[in-house]
Amino acid sequence: MSTIEPTARTAVRRHRDRAHYERDTVNAILDEGFICHVACVVDATVWAIPTTYGRDGDRLHIHGAAANHVLKAAAAGAELTVTVTLVDGMVLARSTFRHSMNYRSVTIFGIATDITDPAEKEAALACIVDHMLPGRSSEARPPNRLELAKTRVVRLVIDEASAKVRTGGPADEEEDLDLPVWAGVLPLRLAAGRPEPDQDHPPVVGVPPVLSQPHRWGA
Amino acid sequence: MSTIEPTARTAVRRHRDRAHYERDTVNAILDEGFICHVACVVDATVWAIPTTYGRDGDRLHIHGAAANHVLKAAAAGAELTVTVTLVDGMVLARSTFRHSMNYRSVTIFGIATDITDPAEKEAALACIVDHMLPGRSSEARPPNRLELAKTRVVRLVIDEASAKVRTGGPADEEEDLDLPVWAGVLPLRLAAGRPEPDQDHPPVVGVPPVLSQPHRWGA
Repeated sequence: MSTIEPTARTAVRRHRDRAHYERDTVNAILDEGFICHVACVVDATVWAIPTTYGRDGDRLHIHGAAANHVLKAAAAGAELTVTVTLVDGMVLARSTFRHSMNYRSVTIFGIATDITDPAEKEAALACIVDHMLPGRSSEARPPNRLELAKTRVVRLVIDEASAKVRTGGPADEEEDLDLPVWAGVLPLRLAAGRPEPDQDHPPVVGVPPVLSQPHRWGA
Repeated sequence: MSTIEPTARTAVRRHRDRAHYERDTVNAILDEGFICHVACVVDATVWAIPTTYGRDGDRLHIHGAAANHVLKAAAAGAELTVTVTLVDGMVLARSTFRHSMNYRSVTIFGIATDITDPAEKEAALACIVDHMLPGRSSEARPPNRLELAKTRVVRLVIDEASAKVRTGGPADEEEDLDLPVWAGVLPLRLAAGRPEPDQDHPPVVGVPPVLSQPHRWGA
């Protein structure tokens, strides 16, 4: 199995049993999520913005308004820290100290590349839209020249990254096990509701199959 | 209604209609969420870590292992950028360009204070546990002296912050409205499942009422 070489920054320091460097594990988390937080320094301030993304092999695509200051800095070579966090449950222990979360997260460090070639840019944007909903880029109208110009897309190669995963029940102290306190996990997941058609302008076609069966979430 | 004065950093630049500076709006988002991303610079790298938090009035409490490098830097006066993002839905438009997300997010900038007084620290930790599940801190065993020493808690006053909120359906171009493409919103929400008791050591008491009726999520 392919492994991403840990660096001084991605080597997990605490809870090493939670660290994962296999590319498959990192990719599976990136593929289930669709919101990342992109952080970088611009004008001596750390910015962290939530945004969607798409993955194509070992490349992560991030987009935003052409004038967005974080994307602009990213395109100009600012180092990025990208985090994707999936929340799987609250872990309730007998002691407050042992309370925890079940989660899967990925952190990627790196310098991105501005995608300027129109064909590459369109492919990267399709990757982002299809990451939200597979096949959607071939259903919706593709971007025109003006829309492409208004959008910035950067590509980050996933070569300095690690995942952190916690699963399972509480890890209570031996001496707490008989306390009259409920202990266990409250599972949490992102759930999709029923698709709500555009009310202002009802669509002339029905709900696409991919929406009736969201690929990540139960109905 | 109390408003948080926008600064050069928190004044939202694009989609100004999505910007909110009312303290009630910011607090409501912080109270519904329970995972934040804490970002700051340590050793010339931007770190962004997902963690839980608690809010007490205009103060946000964040905790972690005493040796955690981000919390350590925070305690030593590093400027923090804290982001809380709630995802409400995918917005599907007739054009790929107009695809969007419905979301509510808060960004807070500031320098935190290390909480060292044991009583204050215990109160701040209770605030974090009760933010996850109201009342939980009075059910579970409180931290002992060693556990308190192993934990770092910092307090960030929420005085430089803004919220960004997108709601509603797609905003398609007039000329796209008749395209044979479904348009609307796929609602998304965090949903709690049935509580799973600790399998290794079944709890001696039943599920607390707060878990049967999670305060934020449907069952």
